[in-house]
Amino acid sequence: MYLILVYDIGQKRVGKMLKLCRKYLHWIQNSVFEGEITPVKLKELLAEAGKIMDEEQDSLIIFKSRNEKWLEKEVVGKEKNEIDTFL
Amino acid sequence: MYLILVYDIGQKRVGKMLKLCRKYLHWIQNSVFEGEITPVKLKELLAEAGKIMDEEQDSLIIFKSRNEKWLEKEVVGKEKNEIDTFL
Repeated sequence: MYLILVYDIGQKRVGKMLKLCRKYLHWIQNSVFEGEITPVKLKELLAEAGKIMDEEQDSLIIFKSRNEKWLEKEVVGKEKNEIDTFL
Repeated sequence: MYLILVYDIGQKRVGKMLKLCRKYLHWIQNSVFEGEITPVKLKELLAEAGKIMDEEQDSLIIFKSRNEKWLEKEVVGKEKNEIDTFL
């Protein structure tokens, strides 16, 4: 499936979360990721994320689509991807 | 069409952008919005956003889907919506 993931995480935990998400998805903006992922890998990602998150303060939203073609993406302004490759 | 909008905006401009996006869409997380929007309204929103944004620093990503049914949303942790209604 195709996934968009957005997190809103406290400063202290954001580094860990970023590292985790980049293991599974492409980083497209500060707290936004996208990519193809299998249900098993997604479960793994969410389990790991749950360990990092403070459920009182943090949140994570995912949008799943069975097919990437059903989503059209448009970026206005600076694209994060250029930076991503250097990190 | 159904829209997901995520922005990454400098602190100074974020208040204006939030206010603008809430005029057109539902606020679901710090910098994430979703909702049904017509192509004309989207054009209007992007034109207004362009005036607020610093194109060197800020970015805005939109994902369009012809049908909301093609997207399945899942929220982990705190939901922003509860707060939204009080603001």
